[in-house]
Amino acid sequence: MNEVISLLKAHRSIRKFTDQPIDEALLADMIRAGQAAATSSFLQGVTVIRVTDQEKRAEMAQLAGGQPYVETAAEFLVFCGDLRRASTCCDWHGATATEGFTEQFIIATVDAALMAQNVVIAAESAGLGICYIGGIRNNPQEVSELLELPRLVTPVFGLCLGWPDQDPDLRPRLPLAVMLKENRYDDSADRDLIEAYDEEVRAYYQNRAKGHDGAVKVMSWSEQMSGMLSREARPHMRSFLEKRGFATK
Amino acid sequence: MNEVISLLKAHRSIRKFTDQPIDEALLADMIRAGQAAATSSFLQGVTVIRVTDQEKRAEMAQLAGGQPYVETAAEFLVFCGDLRRASTCCDWHGATATEGFTEQFIIATVDAALMAQNVVIAAESAGLGICYIGGIRNNPQEVSELLELPRLVTPVFGLCLGWPDQDPDLRPRLPLAVMLKENRYDDSADRDLIEAYDEEVRAYYQNRAKGHDGAVKVMSWSEQMSGMLSREARPHMRSFLEKRGFATK
Repeated sequence: MNEVISLLKAHRSIRKFTDQPIDEALLADMIRAGQAAATSSFLQGVTVIRVTDQEKRAEMAQLAGGQPYVETAAEFLVFCGDLRRASTCCDWHGATATEGFTEQFIIATVDAALMAQNVVIAAESAGLGICYIGGIRNNPQEVSELLELPRLVTPVFGLCLGWPDQDPDLRPRLPLAVMLKENRYDDSADRDLIEAYDEEVRAYYQNRAKGHDGAVKVMSWSEQMSGMLSREARPHMRSFLEKRGFATK
Repeated sequence: MNEVISLLKAHRSIRKFTDQPIDEALLADMIRAGQAAATSSFLQGVTVIRVTDQEKRAEMAQLAGGQPYVETAAEFLVFCGDLRRASTCCDWHGATATEGFTEQFIIATVDAALMAQNVVIAAESAGLGICYIGGIRNNPQEVSELLELPRLVTPVFGLCLGWPDQDPDLRPRLPLAVMLKENRYDDSADRDLIEAYDEEVRAYYQNRAKGHDGAVKVMSWSEQMSGMLSREARPHMRSFLEKRGFATK
């Protein structure tokens, strides 16, 4: 196993950071590493908003569901899917932009995720810690207004970056055989594997709970998933996206 | 700049591979590195189908729009967004799964992209070359049938992996200032930057064309985007996804 693979496997989210800032040159280098990721049809359909204004940071932390590290991390970046830039190119060349294809939304979302993951790997290779913030999709309209995002630009997720001030355990992943199949989807042998994994996840939470006084979560993975998938999931997303010119058809 | 950041910046798609296979242990290691990527709410909403059956490979190459390297690369992986696994957890625990939230589709799509990009970085760190294949979304229904994907599992993209048998130039990326903004979306200064970039992209294609006899593409970036965004984009995607239980609301 080479050092890069070791680095990838060592990922865990960091939610507590020191006060130390991130050097501007390093930040630019990380974003450039992000830009080097693959992009569908050369679209580069992403805009990253770096939020340095402390009032905006505080508001973002609230809009993301009250996550304080959004406010306190050295850097907070918002990755946006961006079709506006390409649409503007149509104007320049006398073409009429199509709008609203679900496929275009997929392309911009995937572009944003590939770019962000490169930024994450670059950051972790420099010793930084990161935490993705899907919570900005709790209030995508308010986030868009705060960052003055125009039509055809949509916030996909945020990313906290900073120097770690905690050293959490790795959270165990599903067995390889559950996530990797050969030639066809066959989950007939998965239940036994997931039940064993459930115990591993319980042990992880039990260990993490040591030293805590209050109530702690000791749930298996399948219990968590059952809870998650039986709840409504941000029911505003579809109408928000459609209003912004995405995925209307 | 550290070596990992250098590696990230050195990415270019590889479409010509040697016959050499990828060691099984390395492949498993790369997938495990993929699993270590961040996942929204711990969902791990991805299934990877490794296509080793040569007949299926040949068919996939056609379904992806006639891309021969899909058939000939040492490995071809299909990354699927998977909500079925979590839905099954609801059954086990007596809960009723919700279905069709656009948000859930976003989560699974982003999970798939983050995991895939980790696999890509792991592969490139070992000297392998890769090429993402969005073309499988040309025929998502046929791809799903070929791989026996059930409801709530959707093919997001494919990934060719192999030992490179070509050494293409890096394709230039947009200027940093176009893709990175501070505190608000402001593209008022972008046109000049993009026009300079257009010339850079033309020069890249002109250089790539050297030695070719036939017609070659020498287009600026903004011309390509204008062409791309003024065409229909896989208009079947929305109805396909809805039929499979995704993004109906």
